[in-house]
Amino acid sequence: MSIETAIAALVPVLGERITRSKSDLDIHGRSEVHYPLTPPDAVAYPLTTAEVSEIAKICNAHDCPIIAWGTGTSLEGHSLAFRGGITVDFSRMNKVLQVNAEDMDVVVQPGLTRAELNEELRATGLFFPVDPGANASLGGMAGTRASGTTTVRYGTMRHNVMALEVVLADGRIIRTGSRARKTSSGYDLTGLFVGSEGTLGMITEMTLKLYGQPEAASAAICAFEDMDAAVQAVTETIQMGLPMARIEFVDADTAAAFNAYAGRDMAYKPHLMVEFHGSETSVAADVTSFGEIAQDHGGSGFEWATNPEDRTALWAMRHNGYYAILASRPGATAISTDLCVPISKLAQAVAETRADIAASIVAGPILGHVGDGNFHAILLIDPDNPAEMQAAKDLSARMMQRALDLGGTVTGEHGVGIGKMDYMQAEHGEAWAVMGDIKCSLDPNNIMNPGKLVRIGN
Amino acid sequence: MSIETAIAALVPVLGERITRSKSDLDIHGRSEVHYPLTPPDAVAYPLTTAEVSEIAKICNAHDCPIIAWGTGTSLEGHSLAFRGGITVDFSRMNKVLQVNAEDMDVVVQPGLTRAELNEELRATGLFFPVDPGANASLGGMAGTRASGTTTVRYGTMRHNVMALEVVLADGRIIRTGSRARKTSSGYDLTGLFVGSEGTLGMITEMTLKLYGQPEAASAAICAFEDMDAAVQAVTETIQMGLPMARIEFVDADTAAAFNAYAGRDMAYKPHLMVEFHGSETSVAADVTSFGEIAQDHGGSGFEWATNPEDRTALWAMRHNGYYAILASRPGATAISTDLCVPISKLAQAVAETRADIAASIVAGPILGHVGDGNFHAILLIDPDNPAEMQAAKDLSARMMQRALDLGGTVTGEHGVGIGKMDYMQAEHGEAWAVMGDIKCSLDPNNIMNPGKLVRIGN
Repeated sequence: MSIETAIAALVPVLGERITRSKSDLDIHGRSEVHYPLTPPDAVAYPLTTAEVSEIAKICNAHDCPIIAWGTGTSLEGHSLAFRGGITVDFSRMNKVLQVNAEDMDVVVQPGLTRAELNEELRATGLFFPVDPGANASLGGMAGTRASGTTTVRYGTMRHNVMALEVVLADGRIIRTGSRARKTSSGYDLTGLFVGSEGTLGMITEMTLKLYGQPEAASAAICAFEDMDAAVQAVTETIQMGLPMARIEFVDADTAAAFNAYAGRDMAYKPHLMVEFHGSETSVAADVTSFGEIAQDHGGSGFEWATNPEDRTALWAMRHNGYYAILASRPGATAISTDLCVPISKLAQAVAETRADIAASIVAGPILGHVGDGNFHAILLIDPDNPAEMQAAKDLSARMMQRALDLGGTVTGEHGVGIGKMDYMQAEHGEAWAVMGDIKCSLDPNNIMNPGKLVRIGN
Repeated sequence: MSIETAIAALVPVLGERITRSKSDLDIHGRSEVHYPLTPPDAVAYPLTTAEVSEIAKICNAHDCPIIAWGTGTSLEGHSLAFRGGITVDFSRMNKVLQVNAEDMDVVVQPGLTRAELNEELRATGLFFPVDPGANASLGGMAGTRASGTTTVRYGTMRHNVMALEVVLADGRIIRTGSRARKTSSGYDLTGLFVGSEGTLGMITEMTLKLYGQPEAASAAICAFEDMDAAVQAVTETIQMGLPMARIEFVDADTAAAFNAYAGRDMAYKPHLMVEFHGSETSVAADVTSFGEIAQDHGGSGFEWATNPEDRTALWAMRHNGYYAILASRPGATAISTDLCVPISKLAQAVAETRADIAASIVAGPILGHVGDGNFHAILLIDPDNPAEMQAAKDLSARMMQRALDLGGTVTGEHGVGIGKMDYMQAEHGEAWAVMGDIKCSLDPNNIMNPGKLVRIGN
């Protein structure tokens, strides 16, 4: 067996840092969504880029699948070993290698999580803004081109990864990008690896952009009569150029889930959650302007949070949204959807989705990143009820087609993994084949996270 | 001859829109820098994507090079026909196809120039910010991943191209990206084609991000005693989070060239040129804050321009910088350099470059985009003096090595073309070979702008 041969060849390289213990395999066979336990054949814990390169060389020689693993918080089965092989767990490559405060960048290893990074940066006055909710590893966030609540102001991982060190399928170690703020020097390989979900290589080092911690910040939550009014308030705010740091929406069902999970007292209505960053003066001005726009569109029940504790509580509630929604139906598992459409189509997309869910047998609270046109319906299903699973999958399929019909994408920030594979052809047409050509040119044996994102051969 | 066969086969497709007239060939054999006249064998003027696809199919079948042409303002010989073949001039594919004001995006054909686009957008309250100086075509700007004076606030073409239609070497037409503001749906092909300099395919349609025209804008110029002080003022401004829309520097020699060319009265000192965009209130606050920072670092002789005419005059002077410098030595041609380094290394890079030029036999005023760490020395040479040409090439080579030693890139915004080919291996190492692998997978016959950016075979 080629996988067995690869594992045997790796034992002299990694010693006890390659393991086949049941507990280790099981931990790396789980995800946060509905997939069944899908363990790899072994788990490797490299400490250095050289070791990662050795793993690739040996696996490439023996046609053994490699799955890169950060924290396992992806939502489309990205890090599950559907074809067996070796999961490469980067948790021991988690150092901050260089803080360049003057240049506002940082060099890190991929196993570091975003919260760990920001903890290390606290004294510098700088922070890393990309915030997908989960305390994911930075390598994993790059792999899925993660974004989240702060994207409207600070961009996605695509905008904030300046340079990478990558180990290719054949063990070659390359560097992409540099610490310069921009470049026109050849193909944007950094951008190609960001979002490639471990299918083109393994990230072993990353240079990230940092930002100054804002002098002042102010967050608020307020209710609207319907989604349309909420979206119009946001569109107007963007067009006025008000620099929102975050602008999130939750529907009435999500508000109800927050009330139960976080002890809030929100009206059963759609809400917007907003945050501004800047100087004391600019934040105060932005808050006033936003308040006026929201009021024009029927916004009510404003609660502003300016001290750090209240803001943290507000965003913790939002970040726990997925768990609050899961808890609203004990014992349920979820299919998460991740549509992103042009903002002018957002209200329509949400309304049609809302109606579609209401007509189905499953529940599905909706929340999302309104400034980006990105939203999630969390479809709650009894894992032992095939009719519900089927209904949820059908809903999800219709939602994705709706996003494409409205000029959008089937995944704004979660990525493709295995869960969105069936919609790639519809979204990309011939361009999906081009992705396959690129994959084949960099990983001809198809060992890097095979079966995800692109379809090669079978 | 395969090129002759391709041209003959294209006549029935394009009729009079494929030409071999000497004047047409000569126009497409020129560039703005020192390369000799290098005309193609024919020039094609397609009107539709379908025609571009036919051109590719026929040229691919006959191994005939294809060079995409926008306005010919590139600076590294990108659009010269060093291997002959057909130049595809996109000037007749120059329509605005869709203005989506609510979503703040626009769909255009690649031959449209940035000034034409902004003229068409004037009534919408929106604008396209990327501003490389030259009134380049938007397709060409995407091809070279152009940026310029506004990058510090609005990003480069990489950040502002949302989606593309591309004709591949074999004539396949693909669409990359969408009008959604973000996506995690597969490899970032949009980002791969932006900056690929026509070596992977021809852009036939583009979706671009737009921004609200700022309610207020204020620009200023001020002098500093030395570059170090100027750079420190900029670094401090960035770290404070002041949102500069532009921040440019010019050295004393460039100031002298401005005086002669634009009738200014600038001191023989380094200068910063800055602009703020926002509301009346925020711009006023930013102006005050910047003034204080600049003064702390010895800034003097401030001139603020708040009305549109004065601001236009100021930036016209900056945009004509290249021509002002050329005019400072009548009859001279130029080698333009384009280093980009981490901002903390900028003062050192400029000082060392300044000293290196001073010790050489050529003149070379320096100007650049200090907020990005990007600067240009315009090396002025007598085209008939081989010693000067050699001295300039040697200087340029040392500058590029210096940029790499300081953690930067040999080209911040001009691109590789043929002029920077010799430095790609030094900058990218094995990653350059990976670029070649990608090129081979998309253009196996190497017909798309061959001899530029990557080295294939010979």
